[in-house]
Amino acid sequence: MINSDLNAIKQRLRQFAEARDWDQYHSPKNLTMALSAEVAEIVEHFQWLTEDQSKTLPKKKLDEVETELADTLIYLIRLADKLDIDLLKAAENKIEVNEQKYPVDKAKGNAKKYTELDE
Amino acid sequence: MINSDLNAIKQRLRQFAEARDWDQYHSPKNLTMALSAEVAEIVEHFQWLTEDQSKTLPKKKLDEVETELADTLIYLIRLADKLDIDLLKAAENKIEVNEQKYPVDKAKGNAKKYTELDE
Amino acid sequence: MINSDLNAIKQRLRQFAEARDWDQYHSPKNLTMALSAEVAEIVEHFQWLTEDQSKTLPKKKLDEVETELADTLIYLIRLADKLDIDLLKAAENKIEVNEQKYPVDKAKGNAKKYTELDE
Amino acid sequence: MINSDLNAIKQRLRQFAEARDWDQYHSPKNLTMALSAEVAEIVEHFQWLTEDQSKTLPKKKLDEVETELADTLIYLIRLADKLDIDLLKAAENKIEVNEQKYPVDKAKGNAKKYTELDE
Repeated sequence: MINSDLNAIKQRLRQFAEARDWDQYHSPKNLTMALSAEVAEIVEHFQWLTEDQSKTLPKKKLDEVETELADTLIYLIRLADKLDIDLLKAAENKIEVNEQKYPVDKAKGNAKKYTELDE
Repeated sequence: MINSDLNAIKQRLRQFAEARDWDQYHSPKNLTMALSAEVAEIVEHFQWLTEDQSKTLPKKKLDEVETELADTLIYLIRLADKLDIDLLKAAENKIEVNEQKYPVDKAKGNAKKYTELDE
Repeated sequence: MINSDLNAIKQRLRQFAEARDWDQYHSPKNLTMALSAEVAEIVEHFQWLTEDQSKTLPKKKLDEVETELADTLIYLIRLADKLDIDLLKAAENKIEVNEQKYPVDKAKGNAKKYTELDE
Repeated sequence: MINSDLNAIKQRLRQFAEARDWDQYHSPKNLTMALSAEVAEIVEHFQWLTEDQSKTLPKKKLDEVETELADTLIYLIRLADKLDIDLLKAAENKIEVNEQKYPVDKAKGNAKKYTELDE
């Protein structure tokens, strides 16, 4: 079965919203705002850390970041559901595009190239 | 098999970064910034639309939004991988917390309640 | 005297950071993250409100939003200072560009046009 | 004269929107989304740079960042105007709060302290 786990979460989130009559608030516009606010809570955890510090978080902070990643995935799944988008398929398609857009021989280990290509 | 599809994407993104020597740029701090920039591209699509318009996007715009959702999932998977976080398990745990935090009888169909509880 | 008030705040923020030895954390990269996290706190206030509700906030919520706007301006001034950018001059230049980019006769009262031109 | 320059820009932005009949799109909710999308364009410029690189941008990139800072200030002024908030006064009040919240003797030069206090 394809997408089994994301699908299970999608179904559970639907039931969660329906049971609380919260579908009325879950327009794609509103969900997008909620998604961006959740991502910003991840940003807050990292804003004063060096890159190296961000790689070795103390357990307590890592647990908090895990919760923010969870919230982010939850809103992302919910938003995709409301727009009738298949998240995993979309990601796979995009990776294929990226593989063509950034060929290994041109992109390899070149920060400048990377930054330019990325824009 | 648990998490099969997200796992497949995670593996593919690892290979993608390794082949290009891009791991050096993929600190959790940097990936968080990239994640937030991708979400903002979704925001841009919805910022001048009404909630109703956001529910019925024309095909062309919907395709563009799909690509932004894909980019968002890609960076989210990559960030979770770098932090050694199991995204699906984290989301499931968080949904359980939410189910206890917002009991149906208190939260049902009450905008004010919803907003307050949400804060 | 030009820019007198923003300048006064800029000076005060410099002294604030210097007195606490916080300049070491205030790289443009980090300040940009802090800026985006502050803006997201404004987003949180509006995410479940309708557009109409967002126009008539109750006093308590309006006070909270005011504090978030203040934090946003503070980080924006600080970031511009670190990059040696004159914020007011930059804004004035950009408004002139916009006035040419969106001529009144083409842009007037047309939602579709507006959205397209905006992209 | 208080707030003279920000006020001048505020007036000019009002006229700009009125002339184009764009006030209808400028609800605080929508302007907040636009503000967050602009800040994300600054984030994009810095996401793959080290902190040190972010301090010494090449001229071309610095000019682009300047334009994004300008757009950010423009939407911030516009949002404050729609909410009838005095931005400069709000920032000054907040700085006073911060000066009490982070006393020099406790906060000075201590990264850990800084991060904790900041949360």
